Amino acid sequence: MHNFNAGPAALPLEVLEQAQGELLDFRGSGMSILEMSHRSKTFEAVMAETEADLRELLGVGAEYKVLFLQGGASLQFGMLPMNLRRTGQSADYIVNGTWGTAAVKDARKLGKVRVAGSSESTNFDRVPETIELDPGAAYLHYTSNETIHGVEWWSEPEPPAGVPLICDMSSDFLSWPVEISKYGLIYAGAQKNAGPAGVTVVILREDLLERVPGGLPVMLDYKVQVAGGSMHNTPPCFAIYMVGLVLKWLKGVGGLEVIASRNQHKAELIYRVIDESGGFYRGHAQQGSRSWMNVTLRLPNEDLEEQFVKQAEGEGMVGLKGHRSVGGLRASLYNAVPLESVQTLAQFMAEFQRRNG
Amino acid sequence: MHNFNAGPAALPLEVLEQAQGELLDFRGSGMSILEMSHRSKTFEAVMAETEADLRELLGVGAEYKVLFLQGGASLQFGMLPMNLRRTGQSADYIVNGTWGTAAVKDARKLGKVRVAGSSESTNFDRVPETIELDPGAAYLHYTSNETIHGVEWWSEPEPPAGVPLICDMSSDFLSWPVEISKYGLIYAGAQKNAGPAGVTVVILREDLLERVPGGLPVMLDYKVQVAGGSMHNTPPCFAIYMVGLVLKWLKGVGGLEVIASRNQHKAELIYRVIDESGGFYRGHAQQGSRSWMNVTLRLPNEDLEEQFVKQAEGEGMVGLKGHRSVGGLRASLYNAVPLESVQTLAQFMAEFQRRNG
Repeated sequence: MHNFNAGPAALPLEVLEQAQGELLDFRGSGMSILEMSHRSKTFEAVMAETEADLRELLGVGAEYKVLFLQGGASLQFGMLPMNLRRTGQSADYIVNGTWGTAAVKDARKLGKVRVAGSSESTNFDRVPETIELDPGAAYLHYTSNETIHGVEWWSEPEPPAGVPLICDMSSDFLSWPVEISKYGLIYAGAQKNAGPAGVTVVILREDLLERVPGGLPVMLDYKVQVAGGSMHNTPPCFAIYMVGLVLKWLKGVGGLEVIASRNQHKAELIYRVIDESGGFYRGHAQQGSRSWMNVTLRLPNEDLEEQFVKQAEGEGMVGLKGHRSVGGLRASLYNAVPLESVQTLAQFMAEFQRRNG
Repeated sequence: MHNFNAGPAALPLEVLEQAQGELLDFRGSGMSILEMSHRSKTFEAVMAETEADLRELLGVGAEYKVLFLQGGASLQFGMLPMNLRRTGQSADYIVNGTWGTAAVKDARKLGKVRVAGSSESTNFDRVPETIELDPGAAYLHYTSNETIHGVEWWSEPEPPAGVPLICDMSSDFLSWPVEISKYGLIYAGAQKNAGPAGVTVVILREDLLERVPGGLPVMLDYKVQVAGGSMHNTPPCFAIYMVGLVLKWLKGVGGLEVIASRNQHKAELIYRVIDESGGFYRGHAQQGSRSWMNVTLRLPNEDLEEQFVKQAEGEGMVGLKGHRSVGGLRASLYNAVPLESVQTLAQFMAEFQRRNG
């Protein structure tokens, strides 16, 4: 199968094989990782190793805390303003797709929000061209890659001095190097490049914890989660373990520079077919905002789009139907999608055009 | 290994073997359940079957909604009062251990709480003997089994007419039949009897959704979760799938009456050794509140307790150290702990007493 799912998405075969091999007896413990106390030395070692590998791969400095939480990126939409926006203060959001819009919606329920830039008027086909920043904002939030629209920031926006940059990095987290020191907080649902669904990675600069107000429900309080080392209550142990395996795989591949160059090559294969199709394929994202993770495109009509999805599925390519808000097709090319799958898709696209163009 | 962990805890071997067998290729899909879109027909079937089996086993009527959420029971400590307590209204809590105490703490942050009964003065060694209920309470909350103290309600408290009964059933959920119609809402972290860590089951009577106020962060809003069928965002797919396998196993065993009788037999084996030890073993929970799930006990001194844990571990029995707030030993005897493990423990206890008594 060629797995182009937008998430949950392809995982490296080696990772799945290792998980399968040790599912009944984890590292000689005589029990499954699924049955093991999160307070056991064995599981604590898994947590510690996972965090250490993440720090190594991304270059996360000691001034940052790493959390493994539940609830997906969507729970962070609420937790962020609850924890980091002081009473009466406004927060800036740059919006270039569905997820940024959802982040704004939750933040608005809890306090003041300014939309500092938006590409909604062009159906989120690009990173916003005009951005006006509030130098007094609690933080500046953006979405580095919009999974549904296939729009990615090629370099991060620059917040005013003293305004922490916050990023929903769910769908391009670990797909390329990131300069962590530019950020106040990064969060990412794991189910794209980092592992299975069920765990959300949060990397936050420790000084931001000073802002956390008293009286938050315990699971929504970053201070509590930091103090408990992500184990204030039982963490999603298996999902964290899987993230750990994916990180080891990523280190084995050669790290983020290597995976980034692979990802660029894969994305360019598909974008080239689009660009050379003479308009048969039309990319949704504009040049300069094209995502390496999610390629979104339209065909001349919906009938052809439907045929494309059906015929591709017949040849073992799944997950290619676009989200209804954009239509057309979407090919998600995350880290674990092999080059051969992308080559197969590119060839199929060319053939499909020959037959139907 | 004999696994007496308090949670995450023993899972049925057949369940683990099935998960292992289909981990690389889920039901002929050519991919792992870990890589599959939550919007795929295959995964939607897993969700639907899991819910149907849960409804069948517990006898959940059509007037109830079933949710599979993230964040553990501890996230419900905050969600409950946010969603179900109207502004200015007070909620009643009966407290017989650590988890009930934590539930009160979160609810107090968000509004009015009355402790309707507590056994704190006897270190939570029983279900409270005196309970005074508020007929105007938003709801009555209790914890059916306190995992740390080993205290279980043998029958549910009776709330005043019109006051919904709400229960944190995390550690005895699915261990015996429950009359669902007595409840407004039940919640349970899966990692005791229902599956691995990472998913929380919530069963709520639909009419309670009328109380949900506007303006809640999206992931904390029961109405949103019900409307999205637990898939407002990506759910913890693998954990839900595992719960589904456990439910099938439970049906195969013969259902909740059968498992309850097994659980009773297992618990009685250990309590008998305690009662016949002439005071060498002292149960923490008083008669009438003894848990079938978590047996808590002390030995004559801490030195012997430490030796017990170490020697038992040497004979393959793990997870027996008690929680620091109670001390001593704790044997968790959840559904998936086999009778042979419990017999082994009972024999070891008798031998240990002969050698040290």
